[in-house]
Amino acid sequence: MTTHTVPASSTTTEQLLFLDRAAVRTCVAGIDPVAAVEDVLRAHAVGRTELPAEGYTSWTNSQGAYCRSIAMLGSVRDADPAAPTAYGMKLINAATSNPAQGMDRAGGVSFLFDPETARPAVLAEAAYLSALRTGAYTMSSLRHLGPQQFEEVTLIGCGAQARTHAELLARYFPAVGALHVHDLLPERATAFATWVERSGLPFTVTAHSQAAEASAASTVVITLTITDTGYLTPDDLRPGTFVAHVSLDDLLPEVFDRAQALYVDDVELIRENPRRVLGRLLGEGRVLAPGTTKPGTTTIRGSLGDVLTGAVPPERPGDGIVVSNPFGMAVLDVGLLARVHARAAAEGHGTHLDLLGADR
Amino acid sequence: MTTHTVPASSTTTEQLLFLDRAAVRTCVAGIDPVAAVEDVLRAHAVGRTELPAEGYTSWTNSQGAYCRSIAMLGSVRDADPAAPTAYGMKLINAATSNPAQGMDRAGGVSFLFDPETARPAVLAEAAYLSALRTGAYTMSSLRHLGPQQFEEVTLIGCGAQARTHAELLARYFPAVGALHVHDLLPERATAFATWVERSGLPFTVTAHSQAAEASAASTVVITLTITDTGYLTPDDLRPGTFVAHVSLDDLLPEVFDRAQALYVDDVELIRENPRRVLGRLLGEGRVLAPGTTKPGTTTIRGSLGDVLTGAVPPERPGDGIVVSNPFGMAVLDVGLLARVHARAAAEGHGTHLDLLGADR
Repeated sequence: MTTHTVPASSTTTEQLLFLDRAAVRTCVAGIDPVAAVEDVLRAHAVGRTELPAEGYTSWTNSQGAYCRSIAMLGSVRDADPAAPTAYGMKLINAATSNPAQGMDRAGGVSFLFDPETARPAVLAEAAYLSALRTGAYTMSSLRHLGPQQFEEVTLIGCGAQARTHAELLARYFPAVGALHVHDLLPERATAFATWVERSGLPFTVTAHSQAAEASAASTVVITLTITDTGYLTPDDLRPGTFVAHVSLDDLLPEVFDRAQALYVDDVELIRENPRRVLGRLLGEGRVLAPGTTKPGTTTIRGSLGDVLTGAVPPERPGDGIVVSNPFGMAVLDVGLLARVHARAAAEGHGTHLDLLGADR
Repeated sequence: MTTHTVPASSTTTEQLLFLDRAAVRTCVAGIDPVAAVEDVLRAHAVGRTELPAEGYTSWTNSQGAYCRSIAMLGSVRDADPAAPTAYGMKLINAATSNPAQGMDRAGGVSFLFDPETARPAVLAEAAYLSALRTGAYTMSSLRHLGPQQFEEVTLIGCGAQARTHAELLARYFPAVGALHVHDLLPERATAFATWVERSGLPFTVTAHSQAAEASAASTVVITLTITDTGYLTPDDLRPGTFVAHVSLDDLLPEVFDRAQALYVDDVELIRENPRRVLGRLLGEGRVLAPGTTKPGTTTIRGSLGDVLTGAVPPERPGDGIVVSNPFGMAVLDVGLLARVHARAAAEGHGTHLDLLGADR
């Protein structure tokens, strides 16, 4: 992975390179975000990343809505020991009442730190980057664990994540011509279809009023909802389907029981979060961690990083269902931002903020 | 405490008000930072604050120097239940090799979050604010626990914290006319004296080559070093001295043993950090937490917040030594930044950053 450091000249000032979402997008067009994410996944698989315990706080706003802030530090060491390590943080906050006000639920900023001075050196809009790394992970899982061929994809949930996934599908899977979508709010599905058309993405969009109808419409199902209650049964999925269980609480336990193969991003992260279905099933012993087996019980094959390093064989859906269940890792944001920053530095994108101002 | 929210109009955009150090300083001149800190201390004493576990990571840079990043979330609820709560985060990073490169050891940024949308709403240079809240805590402790009268103050350690303390002493204790200083690097003590003169602060500065000489030169001793090894004995302090043990590892255990009175900011924070002397002494039972006593053993009286609320009586130095040992709390940064932001909003200071840029 190509990381980089802040030019030496900037270490004696107190400057922060600010990349707004438009600047991040410009840089992303010039890099391969899936390759960037795969480099971090490989690094994670061989212990070249650090993911310290996150800072977390939550509260209820004046409308009674749940609000939270998560501060996630992370670092990714380059495979080349001479290259600098990428250190950074993602601050991502959310309020469940935001969508009703016309805002994305989550938003925030991500940082890169100068590896020599530890100073925050890059500040970037985080929600797009976060959606991008999530989508890039899905693309990588599809590439290695998805059906050999597919022309149709199902997206359940039509928010910001669906848009990023659609952009990445157009970029990485040009054979895909049709999207099947579902959202609890029909107007959101309609708005998504309009957005696809206006964006010039090469997809016909079919909105389904029932999630199960959408999930049965293709052999690639990507869940991008905010549900905390499972709703997809094994019968809602065609034989030979790959499910990217991005939103983590859409699949009912029976889907895991009957899965042909199951992959994650990090077993421990999933185990530590029993509020999500797979964490709960692991805790109950209904799904097993890699290395243990029991007749009739599903064992997690390993991580996508393990697949990328060759430590674990990939398995694509045959007559059964293959599930990818990525918890989400802030090191992906940090590693991706390092790539974005390298591009920004090379091409002069972004704005320099002087932290001291006139005070010197 | 006067907190505030971001104007409603900004909640539907993705804007961040950026306050560089100069803007923060301008706002600070128009507020009472000691009153702001005392409001937060009172809030903390009665359970109106939250201090979630911090995010922490550390590494070694190419020079072999220790680097670290700390992400500290915090919130302060106003005494007025109708007023909004201040939510925020302080990201403060440091490298021990920075001073040799002409940089402050620590630097970073602090945030306020919109209580309704949870979005980061204010971004401010953190090191000055952090030094200011530290200094303001010292001023408050001096006001309530210091000698009734004093005209001379000792500062041990002549870095950025010494400068902030000198500015606050000039503002809050106009009777003080002389500073006694010591630094392991004599040139740093000289640079501090030059800075005092150039800044027009009303102090004569005497540099002492020995710490014990400086500490014995006045009845107010403020430790502002980066030591992790104690060096001050009870004999190095005059009877009737107040010690603000800001840098937390300057006093030898015997000073605590013989203290006439001992106050902290938060007993639990100190107990959880046995790397610092008072945390270690608490763990060993050599110093006791409030509510327990043992003949011949020092018991922590309580917190400065308890003194401010009247829950614990203040005790000024008589013939003995009174010690204030503040661990440091990110809620002070958050509460102080809320006041700074209120001033910035009222007077139009700061720059608006658009997180989305041209991407809408």
